[in-house]
Amino acid sequence: MIKIAVDGMGGDYAPEPIVKGTLLALKKYENIAITIFGDKDKMAPFLEEHPRLTVVHTPFYLEMGEEDPIKQYRTNKEFSMFKALQALKDKEVDAVVSAGPTQALVVGGHFIVRRMKQIRKIAIAPMIPSYDGRGRYLLDSGAHVDVKAEHMRDLAIYATIVCEQVLKREKPTTALINIGSEPSKGRELDIEAYHLLSNDPNINFYGNLEPKEVFTTEADILLSDGFTGNIVMKTMEGTAVGLGKVLKREIKSSFRSKIGALFMRKALNNFKRSLDASEIGGALLMGLDGIVIKAQGASKEHAFFNGIRQAKEMVEADVINKVAAVLNQKDEENS
Amino acid sequence: MIKIAVDGMGGDYAPEPIVKGTLLALKKYENIAITIFGDKDKMAPFLEEHPRLTVVHTPFYLEMGEEDPIKQYRTNKEFSMFKALQALKDKEVDAVVSAGPTQALVVGGHFIVRRMKQIRKIAIAPMIPSYDGRGRYLLDSGAHVDVKAEHMRDLAIYATIVCEQVLKREKPTTALINIGSEPSKGRELDIEAYHLLSNDPNINFYGNLEPKEVFTTEADILLSDGFTGNIVMKTMEGTAVGLGKVLKREIKSSFRSKIGALFMRKALNNFKRSLDASEIGGALLMGLDGIVIKAQGASKEHAFFNGIRQAKEMVEADVINKVAAVLNQKDEENS
Repeated sequence: MIKIAVDGMGGDYAPEPIVKGTLLALKKYENIAITIFGDKDKMAPFLEEHPRLTVVHTPFYLEMGEEDPIKQYRTNKEFSMFKALQALKDKEVDAVVSAGPTQALVVGGHFIVRRMKQIRKIAIAPMIPSYDGRGRYLLDSGAHVDVKAEHMRDLAIYATIVCEQVLKREKPTTALINIGSEPSKGRELDIEAYHLLSNDPNINFYGNLEPKEVFTTEADILLSDGFTGNIVMKTMEGTAVGLGKVLKREIKSSFRSKIGALFMRKALNNFKRSLDASEIGGALLMGLDGIVIKAQGASKEHAFFNGIRQAKEMVEADVINKVAAVLNQKDEENS
Repeated sequence: MIKIAVDGMGGDYAPEPIVKGTLLALKKYENIAITIFGDKDKMAPFLEEHPRLTVVHTPFYLEMGEEDPIKQYRTNKEFSMFKALQALKDKEVDAVVSAGPTQALVVGGHFIVRRMKQIRKIAIAPMIPSYDGRGRYLLDSGAHVDVKAEHMRDLAIYATIVCEQVLKREKPTTALINIGSEPSKGRELDIEAYHLLSNDPNINFYGNLEPKEVFTTEADILLSDGFTGNIVMKTMEGTAVGLGKVLKREIKSSFRSKIGALFMRKALNNFKRSLDASEIGGALLMGLDGIVIKAQGASKEHAFFNGIRQAKEMVEADVINKVAAVLNQKDEENS
């Protein structure tokens, strides 16, 4: 039985879609048991009895706009998110899924779950939409703005193992996000990272990737530091949302185009869906000593269910032990 | 009379659209005279006699894929782009417009035209598309990956003057591209830049801008270092082009949606046009001791014409002297 802790109160629309997504996952997967942490009274209207569901009450939860999660952590360990992470630390569960504030999950992950000893900097790794619909890992999308090239390499190894073992992709490739394709392009960090990535036997290095290919590339993993990764992710989001607004404005501008849009409804819906990250799932916090999935803040039932599915698959594939084994071997070879 | 040098052989489709755009500008604006540098034989099929047009022959021009412009510059000063820049240095003209390779223009600008003494790092500043259609300056989009906060501030002052004097915008605002809105967000560089920008009387500081607002923000100037700016620009391009491909695929997927697209043709064309940077014009190389405009590599006649129009407007507004005056005064106050 795979045991998963859910932060019942995290997310823009919590607890309703969180509780419903949890129940959906329990129905769909017979090999999981879930412990949900949160305010019993607030969750009650949506809860159902289930033999594999445990509810742990705590009246405290983090607001989505939380700006100082470190202070919150120091003041109160009873927030639903932190209790879920503590259960992971105590080996009561195998994974945590939360749609709560990202930085709080990073802070809680650091202080409670802690890093794998083989990884020096953790990363947030969301799946981003792609032209072919199968999604790409983007990392680091915002855990650390200040990293070294070897940290990036170790995270690329982690992501490669996830792509192989969980997504079942053969020889998944890692691309370095950069401002040009030649090895000499970019900052010192990028030039060093290029060197390390191209010489590592555990990584299938794609080379530098200019982000004008960000939506159409064949690479499976898009790698940079946490500042650049965050900028790429938010620029994609901003451009997609902005263009969606332009298209809507154009459609509304004449009767003819409104008629056209009726005929195109299915195509336009597919278009919209292909931009919707919740179809793919949440972000993985790579490098913690346990599986932690950050579901999107705006998660509805289906998106949160997808986060739980991801957590289950990561545990089934024994990702963390496999990453540790590769990195341990690397250390031995270098010592 | 405003005198403009044109690199006749720069650009993906040169020389045809370059020569045609030049003739168009001469017809439209009676107060400009143009010297076009390039291969006379290759330009001949498109050239027309014009009293305000001078043709200077040189058989050499840079390929668009040129990867080592510094070496080219050291070997041969007779490339059409470098000859145009030399004319600017020699005060024979007031501005240069080229659709040739960007990095070569940066190198040539540095070595031939040279920096204004008040500016330590130059920047490439393209106009990027926006929801409201009036465009935004993005800088630095790739001249320098390694800059200090005070360089960014000086460039923001330059861009502010351009927005006021050329675009006639009142109190144009500068936003710092960052991963969060609080002043403490980002790298050391960003935190320092936030401080300088918010305390400068010559800048209307908008605050930090997360790039999920990149297409819809009201700020006039989007500021970062040359690595981040380049990543933002190319991510916007990649996302827009990728989504365009998705939309096309969806339209083609059924007869119904093809019919719909016929009704929506005008709306879809407007949609496409709103993403088309060539409607707005080229990029300004800010910080050189002369006006240098980089027209898009893929410039057609109309886009190149727009580059010449921009150059003319910059000269008319006497931008460089105005920037120098503000920065000189700043220096005096600080000394």
